[in-house]
Amino acid sequence: MASVFTKIMNGELPSYKIFENEHCLAILALDQIRAGHTIVFPKGEVDHYMDVPGAPYEAVMKAAQPIGRAIRAATGCKRVGLAVQGFEVPHFHLHLIPLMGVEDFDFRKAKRLPEAEMKEIQAKVVGKLKL
Amino acid sequence: MASVFTKIMNGELPSYKIFENEHCLAILALDQIRAGHTIVFPKGEVDHYMDVPGAPYEAVMKAAQPIGRAIRAATGCKRVGLAVQGFEVPHFHLHLIPLMGVEDFDFRKAKRLPEAEMKEIQAKVVGKLKL
Repeated sequence: MASVFTKIMNGELPSYKIFENEHCLAILALDQIRAGHTIVFPKGEVDHYMDVPGAPYEAVMKAAQPIGRAIRAATGCKRVGLAVQGFEVPHFHLHLIPLMGVEDFDFRKAKRLPEAEMKEIQAKVVGKLKL
Repeated sequence: MASVFTKIMNGELPSYKIFENEHCLAILALDQIRAGHTIVFPKGEVDHYMDVPGAPYEAVMKAAQPIGRAIRAATGCKRVGLAVQGFEVPHFHLHLIPLMGVEDFDFRKAKRLPEAEMKEIQAKVVGKLKL
């Protein structure tokens, strides 16, 4: 069965897109630790990050730099944290989390935001993205 | 002042080395969430991951794949998690954390291990490393 990320990629599920290229896609995380929380994933479904082939893996990691700068510029966060856990969706995805303090590095804080807020933060991050 | 990682790199502080190349160094984390917890960092001191120049950044991310496979093979963990927070040491470092469950993705669990255990897990991970 296609992963939730493959369904998003194919337009079968809605998402708030931040960036896309040949190898990877970045969208706002469905549940936001803080507004601007983004995930980047390769277009092919591979469970563990260590098993992702070179080109898509490198594309995800490379994209994380300009997207991280855009999140920082758009949100005024102190740092952008990176995280890969992968217990929920068996399709490697890298979290980019705007952090005001170390206490924000906590997935228990993740929650749905209203559509209007998601659209607003999406527009801000995309507006700051310089590739 | 040189960061703790620069001091380790220069041999001024002890560490348990896992891997080294031109651009980066991997060592066992001083405080281990689970035995095998490793950090990888570039040889130059840059605070935020998003500001690290291409070659050392790519080297850290690339090294995370074979080191992650070695940690998995050496520890029998279910997954290897990745994390970057950076509030403590202003020198970008990527955590590779052996996880048995999502509850292991928690830095509050990190603790010092006896030297004998550190040497044992270092030898196991290095023994499984295939570049």
